[in-house]
Amino acid sequence: MPARRVFLDASGRSPVTPRTADAFLAGLADGWADPARLTSESRRARAVLDGAKEAIADALGASPAHLHLTSGAHLAFDRAVAGVARARRGRDRIVAGAIERQAVLDAAEHAAPGAVTRIAVDRDGHLDAESFAREVADPAVALALVQHGNHEIGTLQRLDALGDAAAAAAVPLVVDASATIGHIEPPERWDALVADPADWGAPLGLGVVAMRPRTRWLPAWPGDAFAPGGVSIPLALAAAVALQERLESLEATRTRLHALTARIRDRLAQLEGVTIVGDPEERLPHLVTAAFMYLDGEPIVSRLDREGFAVGSGSACGSDTFEPSQVLAAMGALTHGNLRLGLTPDVRDDEVDRFLATLPRVMEDVRRSMTG
Amino acid sequence: MPARRVFLDASGRSPVTPRTADAFLAGLADGWADPARLTSESRRARAVLDGAKEAIADALGASPAHLHLTSGAHLAFDRAVAGVARARRGRDRIVAGAIERQAVLDAAEHAAPGAVTRIAVDRDGHLDAESFAREVADPAVALALVQHGNHEIGTLQRLDALGDAAAAAAVPLVVDASATIGHIEPPERWDALVADPADWGAPLGLGVVAMRPRTRWLPAWPGDAFAPGGVSIPLALAAAVALQERLESLEATRTRLHALTARIRDRLAQLEGVTIVGDPEERLPHLVTAAFMYLDGEPIVSRLDREGFAVGSGSACGSDTFEPSQVLAAMGALTHGNLRLGLTPDVRDDEVDRFLATLPRVMEDVRRSMTG
Repeated sequence: MPARRVFLDASGRSPVTPRTADAFLAGLADGWADPARLTSESRRARAVLDGAKEAIADALGASPAHLHLTSGAHLAFDRAVAGVARARRGRDRIVAGAIERQAVLDAAEHAAPGAVTRIAVDRDGHLDAESFAREVADPAVALALVQHGNHEIGTLQRLDALGDAAAAAAVPLVVDASATIGHIEPPERWDALVADPADWGAPLGLGVVAMRPRTRWLPAWPGDAFAPGGVSIPLALAAAVALQERLESLEATRTRLHALTARIRDRLAQLEGVTIVGDPEERLPHLVTAAFMYLDGEPIVSRLDREGFAVGSGSACGSDTFEPSQVLAAMGALTHGNLRLGLTPDVRDDEVDRFLATLPRVMEDVRRSMTG
Repeated sequence: MPARRVFLDASGRSPVTPRTADAFLAGLADGWADPARLTSESRRARAVLDGAKEAIADALGASPAHLHLTSGAHLAFDRAVAGVARARRGRDRIVAGAIERQAVLDAAEHAAPGAVTRIAVDRDGHLDAESFAREVADPAVALALVQHGNHEIGTLQRLDALGDAAAAAAVPLVVDASATIGHIEPPERWDALVADPADWGAPLGLGVVAMRPRTRWLPAWPGDAFAPGGVSIPLALAAAVALQERLESLEATRTRLHALTARIRDRLAQLEGVTIVGDPEERLPHLVTAAFMYLDGEPIVSRLDREGFAVGSGSACGSDTFEPSQVLAAMGALTHGNLRLGLTPDVRDDEVDRFLATLPRVMEDVRRSMTG
């Protein structure tokens, strides 16, 4: 019997659990109607939606009245950044981290064309707090945009220091928590927060924006700027249940995956021409990125796939897998190709062992085929 | 035993059939992965997505290579109109029907601020073909925007005449088929077409744009402008299956519902102060809108709801049910309130009978409570 296929590419999307799929179906049964209408069907849909929003808000440490759902994380970034920037009219600069997601940088560029300043990171991926403080002190800055944790290298930002600097300058801090919610505790320092349910195990198709009650933002047009045409209520319920499922075992999963990824990091670092990128301790528990000095990522991914392992390479969020990682480029990591692993909560120790036993042989095969 | 609840508010959203829900689950099982990556999971997801797009394109008479999915119909309108307008740079006017959906007019206003000309309709809701032809002949017109059928009053536009005029002026014709696909045959005269899977029985969260291979359009930025961050593959599969389900019984359902709505129109027209709006023959089979001279719509909807009937009032696509219908206002229909019915394919004759027996009493109750 062939060994069970091992999925080690959980970043942004992963298989949906039966409990989350059931929640979607329950949401479909009770939440298919338009919640804005006057009928019993609509009232029931509204109750399902309100319940889902409340559960998600609770988990984020946000107020349900200031939680907004969109039809995807990209739209959430765009609407959050544009809305906060619009309320800061007259200030036309945005300060952002150098290793933010492309979707975040797109949203920033859209809101402040040609006026996005990117703050450099150190070798582990932490933003330079001094230069961040210096930049946000400029009265022309509309908002600052930093991630809670990086979606490729896993490094967690030191939000206390960044939050202090932003608060001192009275600049709203927009935090991208799209790679961290459901994996670690939510961040506490933010004025606006963006999260991505697909990253915590919900089906794709929903984005989350939380604002503090004090945070000012302006929609681009009257009406619901976050979800024109309405948001999928079944997806909202599925997202709430998937998050609940993650939170119930958050500490245990975090500890177990952190140990597993530590083992992976140690083993990979012993291989020739391989560098592990990102902070070894202040990091997400389930992600590992390795940069290769001499090897392409693509043939390694393809060979591992044939051996039964799904892994990632290139940019985690690019639409073209063959593009180099912008995160690694921004960090100045000398890299030919790279390998990106994302562990799901149900990955087994023996599966990781099997992967670690297979990878060196695959790398050797690829090396031989390149030189031969 | 209380009678089964009767849902007569099918416009934009309706209950999802078991077969469509099953398709969503199948799509979740095989289509959860990012189709842009290199693994087997991604290839499988890509195959599911391609199959769903091909099925939808076939049903629309479109080419799969020129079919685009978005995360909702509103976004579909916006991207289709903006993309076609951008390719017509230098021409800054848009010609649109007077009774287009608000989302369509928003998209037009977004693409051509302050330069949207609305073509008047006759008393049945047909665009004035002469004034349409005159307006599109202006070389400053970027595109023309008309609906296949109206989402409230059901009137079908005479697309042949409008299409001839647009073609003679070499102006692209963008057709809103969001209220008609799955109910009647798709339109044939269009350069770009927008459809809304939620209206044909799919779960909310998907929009469809079809372009002719010859139609020029430009994205706002490089990459996938229609679905930044990707589209839900389970929703795409559910939409394809829901459409298939509608098409399998299209003719029979159309004939049956047309007869039922004809009966409803006749009966309502006999009531005092009630006018039926829209073309009595060239219309969608499942919709009826009645305008009241003396009564509000809201108390009638609420009382009918308590009696077991879900019906609509106000604008079909407004977020606030209490807003007056923009369609009726644009038609100059003298109306205090209105009642909007949308029949699902599985509505039973005896349910419609029961509704017709209940409505006059409910109207009389509301009339008494208003004067008393």
